[in-house]
Amino acid sequence: MDAPSLVYSRFETEMQVRPDDIDMYQHVHSSRYLDYVLAARFDQMERCYGMPMSEFQKQGYGWFIASTQMNFKRPLKIGDHFVVRCWIENFTLIGLRVRFEIDNVIEAKRSCDGWFDYVMVALETTRPVRIPEWIRAKYSI
Amino acid sequence: MDAPSLVYSRFETEMQVRPDDIDMYQHVHSSRYLDYVLAARFDQMERCYGMPMSEFQKQGYGWFIASTQMNFKRPLKIGDHFVVRCWIENFTLIGLRVRFEIDNVIEAKRSCDGWFDYVMVALETTRPVRIPEWIRAKYSI
Amino acid sequence: MDAPSLVYSRFETEMQVRPDDIDMYQHVHSSRYLDYVLAARFDQMERCYGMPMSEFQKQGYGWFIASTQMNFKRPLKIGDHFVVRCWIENFTLIGLRVRFEIDNVIEAKRSCDGWFDYVMVALETTRPVRIPEWIRAKYSI
Amino acid sequence: MDAPSLVYSRFETEMQVRPDDIDMYQHVHSSRYLDYVLAARFDQMERCYGMPMSEFQKQGYGWFIASTQMNFKRPLKIGDHFVVRCWIENFTLIGLRVRFEIDNVIEAKRSCDGWFDYVMVALETTRPVRIPEWIRAKYSI
Repeated sequence: MDAPSLVYSRFETEMQVRPDDIDMYQHVHSSRYLDYVLAARFDQMERCYGMPMSEFQKQGYGWFIASTQMNFKRPLKIGDHFVVRCWIENFTLIGLRVRFEIDNVIEAKRSCDGWFDYVMVALETTRPVRIPEWIRAKYSI
Repeated sequence: MDAPSLVYSRFETEMQVRPDDIDMYQHVHSSRYLDYVLAARFDQMERCYGMPMSEFQKQGYGWFIASTQMNFKRPLKIGDHFVVRCWIENFTLIGLRVRFEIDNVIEAKRSCDGWFDYVMVALETTRPVRIPEWIRAKYSI
Repeated sequence: MDAPSLVYSRFETEMQVRPDDIDMYQHVHSSRYLDYVLAARFDQMERCYGMPMSEFQKQGYGWFIASTQMNFKRPLKIGDHFVVRCWIENFTLIGLRVRFEIDNVIEAKRSCDGWFDYVMVALETTRPVRIPEWIRAKYSI
Repeated sequence: MDAPSLVYSRFETEMQVRPDDIDMYQHVHSSRYLDYVLAARFDQMERCYGMPMSEFQKQGYGWFIASTQMNFKRPLKIGDHFVVRCWIENFTLIGLRVRFEIDNVIEAKRSCDGWFDYVMVALETTRPVRIPEWIRAKYSI
């Protein structure tokens, strides 16, 4: 069982805003923050957890987003460098909650934060499955 | 004051999935649901509330997303027709919460739902402002 | 052989600009015109040629873009309705050239035009294949 | 006058594919290559030519794409690192042609190449203007 006091590692990925991320308000378009977290997760799964998304796919698994909450604090702008900090908050039998924070690197200010609830699915059925113990162990760092 | 029992109108916009909305899982990419709600809101502001976003901009106002929660139920697929149903849940002095439901038209099944908290800003300062009474009236239908 | 004088049918798909298509210049972002033509092709393959992309996929075929030229005339803006007109200019053994025109509906002005060279591939190998005669016939209208 | 033999500098920007760039074929979506060239140009205008796009905007100028040709050779895939190589081919009175090559870094293979014709516009009128001599000089390296 996960004791509530269990604390998982926080990992960071640094990225830069692309011009095509900018919307009519000269800010990063809201939906792109979701894409930034997705990109950071892919990077961290490979680089920090040692099990890239492609490995999940080879094993017949995928991660689908069940739910998200995103809080938009200060918009990123063109050319901004930012860091996406992610960590697992808790596991359930079939999924996990990932918390994230996106900070502007130069101004060192919070741009966006929130969480994503992921559910593990079998790619063949696209239905939720119980997370295998060995995967859970790999991600419990 | 808004009594908790006050119920605002629900409006619907029908759209179709574009091929460029599809991601590596052959589903609509998660962040595009946010774009669909945005498109529905623009349509409904003009068609249903009689005050399009361009009118807000002419008056020097904009609506920024402060926060969102999105629940992903069943993914939309290529070519799917869907309806985006939106309604105001409540007003604050400077903003409002919009609830939304996205339903697959053919299967009549829920695809995604949730809410968006919008804040009204003065475009010149990009800082929140109190919603003028006449705008609040126009949107309290 | 295709005689140079052979003329193929022109088909039209009407669409509307989505807010997330708009870029920092308050215009439709250049790369979205490519997405509009793609969406129109998917629509016309199903509705006009009677063989949707999904049918190609079931048969083990896909269409990849080999090359494109796009000429940007007048930018589309938020909420604009536009029509995408497409027609086959000529076939090769393994592909075809599709010409397109995107016109603003209200102003009746040309927004973008150009062509796409598509190559038929076997999905299993992702290598070009000769277009089967029955498919060529279906598209030679 | 530009002598045909005049050769301008080639500059490179390295980037990585984001998961949201991937389409239903598990490849980078065609329209994203246009976005990659745009991102590389913004980077190189600032880093290599010493005059970022924001400086053009402050001076009241913008660069609009008039035309493009893109040749798709080998698709980039998720996580791929790639380099975007750009150089000016020639100037006209009101614009310039930029050639580009996108190479996969690990495989050292060509992924996409082509050109973009840009036209300089006055932002106030969004109409083409003659390129000022001092800007032309700054970019003639």
